[in-house]
Amino acid sequence: MPSINIGVIGFGTVGEGVVRALLGKPQFLEKRIGARLVLKAVCDRDLSRKREVKVDRGILTTDVNKILHSPDIRIVVELIGGVHPAKEFILEAFRRGKHVVTANKALLAECGKEIFEAAKRANVDLYFEASVGGGIPIIKALRESLCANHIDTMLGIVNGTSNYILSAMSEESLSFNQALAEAKKKGYAERNPALDIEGFDSAHKLAILTLLGFGKSVDLSDIYVEGIEDISLSDIRYAQDLGYVIKLLAIAKNIDGCLEARVQPTLLSREHLLSNVKGVYNAIYVHSDLAGGTLFYGRGAGSKPAASSVLGDIIDVARNIKNDSINRVPVYVEDRTIRKLRAFSETESRYYLRLSVIDKPGCLAMIARILGRHGISIASVVQKERKQAKIVPVVMMLHDAKERNVRQALDQINRLSAIKKKTVAIRVER
Amino acid sequence: MPSINIGVIGFGTVGEGVVRALLGKPQFLEKRIGARLVLKAVCDRDLSRKREVKVDRGILTTDVNKILHSPDIRIVVELIGGVHPAKEFILEAFRRGKHVVTANKALLAECGKEIFEAAKRANVDLYFEASVGGGIPIIKALRESLCANHIDTMLGIVNGTSNYILSAMSEESLSFNQALAEAKKKGYAERNPALDIEGFDSAHKLAILTLLGFGKSVDLSDIYVEGIEDISLSDIRYAQDLGYVIKLLAIAKNIDGCLEARVQPTLLSREHLLSNVKGVYNAIYVHSDLAGGTLFYGRGAGSKPAASSVLGDIIDVARNIKNDSINRVPVYVEDRTIRKLRAFSETESRYYLRLSVIDKPGCLAMIARILGRHGISIASVVQKERKQAKIVPVVMMLHDAKERNVRQALDQINRLSAIKKKTVAIRVER
Repeated sequence: MPSINIGVIGFGTVGEGVVRALLGKPQFLEKRIGARLVLKAVCDRDLSRKREVKVDRGILTTDVNKILHSPDIRIVVELIGGVHPAKEFILEAFRRGKHVVTANKALLAECGKEIFEAAKRANVDLYFEASVGGGIPIIKALRESLCANHIDTMLGIVNGTSNYILSAMSEESLSFNQALAEAKKKGYAERNPALDIEGFDSAHKLAILTLLGFGKSVDLSDIYVEGIEDISLSDIRYAQDLGYVIKLLAIAKNIDGCLEARVQPTLLSREHLLSNVKGVYNAIYVHSDLAGGTLFYGRGAGSKPAASSVLGDIIDVARNIKNDSINRVPVYVEDRTIRKLRAFSETESRYYLRLSVIDKPGCLAMIARILGRHGISIASVVQKERKQAKIVPVVMMLHDAKERNVRQALDQINRLSAIKKKTVAIRVER
Repeated sequence: MPSINIGVIGFGTVGEGVVRALLGKPQFLEKRIGARLVLKAVCDRDLSRKREVKVDRGILTTDVNKILHSPDIRIVVELIGGVHPAKEFILEAFRRGKHVVTANKALLAECGKEIFEAAKRANVDLYFEASVGGGIPIIKALRESLCANHIDTMLGIVNGTSNYILSAMSEESLSFNQALAEAKKKGYAERNPALDIEGFDSAHKLAILTLLGFGKSVDLSDIYVEGIEDISLSDIRYAQDLGYVIKLLAIAKNIDGCLEARVQPTLLSREHLLSNVKGVYNAIYVHSDLAGGTLFYGRGAGSKPAASSVLGDIIDVARNIKNDSINRVPVYVEDRTIRKLRAFSETESRYYLRLSVIDKPGCLAMIARILGRHGISIASVVQKERKQAKIVPVVMMLHDAKERNVRQALDQINRLSAIKKKTVAIRVER
């Protein structure tokens, strides 16, 4: 039985999960590959912290070159995250003819094209299933299973922290800050949760999904990003009354050869399968010409789900090594029919508006007139019970409207003397 | 650019979808493979029927040997369904060194092991994504993405006809017969729908899932099969009142090395993601040691979704041909730790019971006593409004109980003079 040697860089939460699975079921993995996986080295800056898996001291190292320069290590597993020095490590591994498995979404979102081209030039494999959706095999689905399809829409709940917070607000009637505190207590939010709740982690994942699903490399700066930090419990309640749930969605669409990519809190009908994805779970909905609507659901983070994806990738690469079929599947196929990115201001959706209006006659008419002047029509209006002296919340659902028109109309509406707070606007997906 | 020649056997609904996709996007597919797919021959007994895709008359044939004996056809796509003569065609293709892509669930369920071994001996590839779940890439997920996992549970809604009927009963308050008639009118049920509504189609798919997910070949005759033909609208309503939905599930579990495989109508909590899978959609829930709970959802049937899976398989095989990596992924890996199949009578679940009881004192006590004597405890009881003179429906939810004990208790209960109709018993999954 041939052996394939592996080096793991990064012995944190995911690294522990990968090492535990590699050491814990050697025969199980061996039978699936027809080769033995041998863990040759595990590298981390800090080896003093106690880990939940026992590793032979001889394979632990703080020197990354013990892995990168080792002639007999074939697969390098990069699990340190972040752009630097992960990028340098991966490029060095490529130069030395090593295949790489990584979970690094930030790196692939920021330098994906460069990394993918370097792998191709070096004629090595690069697999990255754990970079999006934890244990959900969405990367393989896009690269292989669905690859005869023209995809038109991807909607993803790809950040567990945000989804946990929105679920807790919705189900336990917590405020945003209470829900965030609970998420931190349970270990679902980091001490500095900005990357998650402000939507940038979702944007990283969306950049990867967009490259694979649409064959188009999108600059992170071209993705419109709006987080959940301004979502209030009252908007969640009003949405519920109307039959909707609020989710943080990563959205990419190809509309007539024009690509849209954005991350935003979104109202979803309670009938939409994504609206039932709760807590730290993730899900990605993909719509395409042949398969129609498909959905992939699972645990979006955590040691074991990430290990499932990393191990799946290691097995894939090992099968390629054993069969001498490196680069069997192109990372992505560029689609030259996509002409351009649609500017966010040009995107169209339905909208939920919550206006804080002084309770006096003629107000609604004024608001409706301004919307009408911008070509925006109202689908429904609910005036809520009076909350504070004279100020009432008015909830409106708009028909499809262009973002730019809505912004311009809201600028005018917010300047009305009858409007007492900045109007809340949340987009709606079908 | 190298060419790979393809022959399609069976020019029905799925065949049309496959041929249309093959002819409709040649460059798109070519870029994904690095080779040109050439449709060399399409075989069907009936070439007179009008198809929705135009095919060069020169490649149409009624003689299957034009495909099986053609030396330059590398991939045979079998889409005629049923065991014979599909089996003979596939085995002949293997003997002549051809790779096979099939959507044939009945054949793989009945003779899977034989077919898989013949493919291995002939050193050819056999792919069959479209055999379970239409456009849902569950086969690849089990064979590749999740293959580092020990799977413990699979729950599948894998028959669109049954799911359509149950959804229509539940949402439009139709009787079973009304819903079946509607399904036929819409083309979601065949003229003879027995295979679908009696659960045997689901059992075929379960046999395939079980082989891949648990590495265990299960005889169809060892799968307990119960269909939806006896599900009444009142049970759907009572279940709804208790927060449940009724679904036809294909269930496979590995409990301590003992395998269970059954198809049955099942109460699922409204919170369960599978309970939101409606209409003709399919979904498969998989739980495993690393990934945890994952779910795969999509269109379970139809020309285009099946074509998505068949094309995905063709691309996979073509990539193997191009990279000389045939048999790169074993069809399944036998798991010798599974000692035996658990007999259906030994399986445990929670139960929903609906009893038709004469409305007189002492009845409930008598029923509770019989259940207690069989070690079965009651979780809740609801006595429904009186329906007919003196006969009232009583709905009970039981705690976990062994099937055999429940059957024995019900035999006694049904013989009570106070019980006026056979008691309905439906299992509950969490």
